[in-house]
Amino acid sequence: MKAEIISIGTELLVGSILNTNAKFLSETLAENAIDVYRQSTVGDNIDRIVAAFREAAARSDLLITSGGLGPTMDDVTFEALSKFISKPLALHRPTYRAIVSRLKRHGFQMTKLITKQCYVPQSVKVFQNDHGTAPGVYCETFYQDRKVQVMVLPGPPREMEPLFTNQALPYFKKKIGLSGAKFLIRSVKLTDVTEVQVAQKVPDLLRLKPPATVGIYAKPDEVELKIMVKDNSKKQACRRADRIEKTIRTRFREKVATIDNETLSSVIGQILRKNKETLALAESCTGGLLSYLVTQTPGSSDYYLGGVVSYHDRIKILELGIPSDQIKRHGAVSRVVAKKMAVNIKSKFRADYGIGITGIAGPSGGRAKKPVGLVFVGVASKQKVFCKKMRFFGNRKEIQSHAAHRALDLLRLELLK
Amino acid sequence: MKAEIISIGTELLVGSILNTNAKFLSETLAENAIDVYRQSTVGDNIDRIVAAFREAAARSDLLITSGGLGPTMDDVTFEALSKFISKPLALHRPTYRAIVSRLKRHGFQMTKLITKQCYVPQSVKVFQNDHGTAPGVYCETFYQDRKVQVMVLPGPPREMEPLFTNQALPYFKKKIGLSGAKFLIRSVKLTDVTEVQVAQKVPDLLRLKPPATVGIYAKPDEVELKIMVKDNSKKQACRRADRIEKTIRTRFREKVATIDNETLSSVIGQILRKNKETLALAESCTGGLLSYLVTQTPGSSDYYLGGVVSYHDRIKILELGIPSDQIKRHGAVSRVVAKKMAVNIKSKFRADYGIGITGIAGPSGGRAKKPVGLVFVGVASKQKVFCKKMRFFGNRKEIQSHAAHRALDLLRLELLK
Repeated sequence: MKAEIISIGTELLVGSILNTNAKFLSETLAENAIDVYRQSTVGDNIDRIVAAFREAAARSDLLITSGGLGPTMDDVTFEALSKFISKPLALHRPTYRAIVSRLKRHGFQMTKLITKQCYVPQSVKVFQNDHGTAPGVYCETFYQDRKVQVMVLPGPPREMEPLFTNQALPYFKKKIGLSGAKFLIRSVKLTDVTEVQVAQKVPDLLRLKPPATVGIYAKPDEVELKIMVKDNSKKQACRRADRIEKTIRTRFREKVATIDNETLSSVIGQILRKNKETLALAESCTGGLLSYLVTQTPGSSDYYLGGVVSYHDRIKILELGIPSDQIKRHGAVSRVVAKKMAVNIKSKFRADYGIGITGIAGPSGGRAKKPVGLVFVGVASKQKVFCKKMRFFGNRKEIQSHAAHRALDLLRLELLK
Repeated sequence: MKAEIISIGTELLVGSILNTNAKFLSETLAENAIDVYRQSTVGDNIDRIVAAFREAAARSDLLITSGGLGPTMDDVTFEALSKFISKPLALHRPTYRAIVSRLKRHGFQMTKLITKQCYVPQSVKVFQNDHGTAPGVYCETFYQDRKVQVMVLPGPPREMEPLFTNQALPYFKKKIGLSGAKFLIRSVKLTDVTEVQVAQKVPDLLRLKPPATVGIYAKPDEVELKIMVKDNSKKQACRRADRIEKTIRTRFREKVATIDNETLSSVIGQILRKNKETLALAESCTGGLLSYLVTQTPGSSDYYLGGVVSYHDRIKILELGIPSDQIKRHGAVSRVVAKKMAVNIKSKFRADYGIGITGIAGPSGGRAKKPVGLVFVGVASKQKVFCKKMRFFGNRKEIQSHAAHRALDLLRLELLK
């Protein structure tokens, strides 16, 4: 089973938006053991879309498009599909009725432009879009005497993702009678190591051949080892991945930070919740990012009390109780201040752990002795307080992100002790 | 001049990473009046890469690839290029020497794998990679009697972006003698309106034909009108875009929030800095995101004092002075509390403006009367305080993001008064 993804939209070709749909579809197909052979992006133009359909149909069995189903005149994907499968467009009444009643519930009326979205090629399978107006469709056709499946999905990720996952993909798998063959992907993320250091410690794993392989990917704040196992039995695949994961854990121990969808924030949350402990944060250069990362984990209110963003030195003095003479003597970006921030936010908020971050995110404000990218992270626990001096590279946003992630990782390591 | 982008890498086809390179290249080409006709993604496989070269060469004049130049055996882009242009690979000595001396400076030695990266097809133009080892190359070839330009770039964005912008693109433009034709793109973003409302107010602009067109795009927190003007004179193009922008401003007034790379955060920053006024924030459900967005603007320390993330009710009471009986009576998510948060953070931090946000980000914690997505934003200025009740849809992250952006927009509108 070879699949191709065709992303439709001139905004992609002029680089206005990132193609997150191709990533999402590819990832979901990979997990379902469907190989993606090619991804293409074409503009909103009937002939070009039809040409893309034909090229892909000559190579692959399943074509999945996203985009070009909107209400405006430049959205022509259904017209292109109609041409490719030689079926005229017709008003799909169930879709029309569903949209009218949904609009009514929200106090809106049907418009001519939205009605246009209800015209789909005759005799295709239609999937209602629960998060927007344009429906998704599925059909089978013949091209050069080969049977080809076509799935047409809306462009906005909020609409496309649930429609594909909950409706189109299950329908397709049932229709095609796809075997239970599963492609299990497990992502093991390591922190505080370089790609080369990781590669040198697992040369045997990187040389594994299908059905079980391990890939290595360097990411901004971590190195990912991706375990990929293909097997007819999910249980077997899991067992095999477990064994490989165990090998990685034995070699890297606490440097294994997260598995799959875990984040540093969710891992910290699990430990804090289990220990019934609480956390408070004092941030300067990260400006609230650290706090935001912690609160991205649902249920973080169980252990996260809150924080202070002390952007101005006055707030460091008044709210965090940093003596002004210490700021004068050591500078706001210093080991002394980072430690004091961590200790004082901990006691002020009556938390079990406190973190303080101060640094120079840039682009200006750097000096020879204290360059852009210099960051101090203080961590205070019940027994002690310590501080790490770090130096990051990149733009302002990257430095803020690196600093926040490293701070979370320092806390994680402390919690594991 | 028609260009195509070929992204190379199996990690893209299995959805491990987002294709930011295609966006970056497309955007940069658009700004240089080079049309991107197609984007494709293929795996790390010589024959498939050559096939992609051939298909693209049959349609377009310039092919740009990124990826597949790494040190490991699965990186085969140079081999594919060698096959496509029928020139054998040969060691490129200047690249080799440059890498050896750079590695030496960092205390590393040349390895066999890195040496592999120095083999490029004979007689191509080579661009040194200042941020990595694999060089970029440019060459011209004939395919089906048509002259085709090929540019091969490394995959990591940190390496590819400067190499393309500073070396490959200028070299290409000079070589080809590209006319000064400029494609001016101006993005006008509107807040607090729907795509349909915008479309209904500018049907004339949406019908414009080249050389000046206007496109409409719905984004999560705004609607974008993109003005695109092609002209030989940059000044003329600017003047034309100015006229269209003026029309949009006349019709939407203060709903025009940002132009081009401006963000709500940078627009607010400009006004606050001009007025020499300051801002303080009190957040609950956004968990620090609002503060982080404000501090993403370089120089925000000029007007942003800081904030309190009062995630636990105890912090709302102790740090923000919300009377506990008010929380009991109205709930932490209420108009009363949002207003009080705004007023109290303003006076506590001695700022000119204060914002308070409280809401239910979900996924749990919602009730019939106070559902997930309910958010109150309070804004306090010198003269007054007001509160907006809002309801957002989506997952936790989306609700946090919507709330933070709407809060920034409310402040923007208040600052404009």
